[in-house]
Amino acid sequence: MDALMLPLELLGIFAFAVSGALLAARKQFDLVGSVLLASLAGLGGGVVRDLMIDQGPPVAMTNSLLLLPVLLAVVLVAAKLLYENRLRKTLLAFDAMGLSLFCLTGAVIAYEAGLNPVACTLLGLTTGVGGGALRDVVANEVPQIFNPRGVYALPAMLGAGLTVLTLELGIFTIWSGLAISALVFTLRMLSLR
Amino acid sequence: MDALMLPLELLGIFAFAVSGALLAARKQFDLVGSVLLASLAGLGGGVVRDLMIDQGPPVAMTNSLLLLPVLLAVVLVAAKLLYENRLRKTLLAFDAMGLSLFCLTGAVIAYEAGLNPVACTLLGLTTGVGGGALRDVVANEVPQIFNPRGVYALPAMLGAGLTVLTLELGIFTIWSGLAISALVFTLRMLSLR
Amino acid sequence: MDALMLPLELLGIFAFAVSGALLAARKQFDLVGSVLLASLAGLGGGVVRDLMIDQGPPVAMTNSLLLLPVLLAVVLVAAKLLYENRLRKTLLAFDAMGLSLFCLTGAVIAYEAGLNPVACTLLGLTTGVGGGALRDVVANEVPQIFNPRGVYALPAMLGAGLTVLTLELGIFTIWSGLAISALVFTLRMLSLR
Repeated sequence: MDALMLPLELLGIFAFAVSGALLAARKQFDLVGSVLLASLAGLGGGVVRDLMIDQGPPVAMTNSLLLLPVLLAVVLVAAKLLYENRLRKTLLAFDAMGLSLFCLTGAVIAYEAGLNPVACTLLGLTTGVGGGALRDVVANEVPQIFNPRGVYALPAMLGAGLTVLTLELGIFTIWSGLAISALVFTLRMLSLR
Repeated sequence: MDALMLPLELLGIFAFAVSGALLAARKQFDLVGSVLLASLAGLGGGVVRDLMIDQGPPVAMTNSLLLLPVLLAVVLVAAKLLYENRLRKTLLAFDAMGLSLFCLTGAVIAYEAGLNPVACTLLGLTTGVGGGALRDVVANEVPQIFNPRGVYALPAMLGAGLTVLTLELGIFTIWSGLAISALVFTLRMLSLR
Repeated sequence: MDALMLPLELLGIFAFAVSGALLAARKQFDLVGSVLLASLAGLGGGVVRDLMIDQGPPVAMTNSLLLLPVLLAVVLVAAKLLYENRLRKTLLAFDAMGLSLFCLTGAVIAYEAGLNPVACTLLGLTTGVGGGALRDVVANEVPQIFNPRGVYALPAMLGAGLTVLTLELGIFTIWSGLAISALVFTLRMLSLR
């Protein structure tokens, strides 16, 4: 993973890990359950992506740096510095942030691995929704992705598609990437109103 | 994948994708949920098989053609050209068709990858039951495979085993393959009576 | 897998397979359901580990010997030679035995594949808890790992960490390995009192 993508990947891991730790808190799991749901949510999408790309062990296994945002998320939730507000939107907001960043980094990483544009879009989508789906399935919840309140997969697919388009056109930069992520996040949050 | 297997693989993807889209309809998921369950059911078994064989990214990622039957299934179900009849057998029939085709193509693809006969049989079985299991687990249903009404895994295992046997004996053709598929389908449907 | 690890791996597969077959019995699944839950529990953790290490097909696919303990477990449970006692501790004891052996073999196999110490510890943990988690998710149970009664992941992580430490220090032997496994098993069972 190149230097531009790493900060976005770390931020995405943090956001999804927070969503996992918050779900563990809501379900009254203990600290270990919190670590596990945070890891599944934060790292699951990337691990599935790396298994699909099939170029050696998943980054989450070889680069220990990726574990730090997971631990940070667990500590912040355990210390109640991050918690669910009355409207229960906190978990959904962090989930949306993870979604918006991972559909981007997933598409870029698949593109760098030489997959075709359709496959890159699908892998961006899979990376974006994978961690959250694993989190929900293991916690015995119906995945967010099936929740009729709000659209989930469509913004992620749009984000992954726009990322691949800008890569193909040679106009992808960290700034266009951030703009795409912001668009995905905004669409997802608007759909939840 | 060679030219003989591709049509059968596409037909199997279509059949399983229909089962996924029908389950989404029964559970009143929206269009996105339909696409996701159809993709999981139609492509999940093959993706698991390709991850196991470990020869590069899954075919579903590299060959966009495999996405067409999924989309077709979603459209046909959304347009109510395919729907569950009063006896609720429609979903089970498409599921059985996918099962009968995937235990065949899974075994053949594993065989071509050079795995041993036992592994080929197991991978045929895994390919056959994998997509349906993913579909049911993600939709929070008890997988068909555990449903006491009717046998599920045994016909698939028989089909995969017969496929490997005919391959070993050098008498595998598209016609013997179709005969094996028809046998698996018949056994599965008879067990549901 | 070298000659020292194979007996421990086979024993771990057997222990987890028994836990799967017992869960199938408790849920009144038929023989096929028993084979499937036993396979998922017994082989699932190792398959996930091998997918992550990414060095060819999973051992469970290429070495048919690994299927024998699964079949033995299914037969013993079907013949009611192994069953749940009144305290329902039997399943948990076999699960703990599998956990204690797989966190060891998973870490060793990852180490031999050249992964870094942190990754080896995580893969040991994943191998240890993976099969049981798959077993429970597919059977629609809340995974043991989230059960507030008793600690689960911590002993496995400790066992994997100690294994990696002894490997790094060059003092790993089959006996130190067995001692680590016994420690993990004891901690897990004590936590269930």
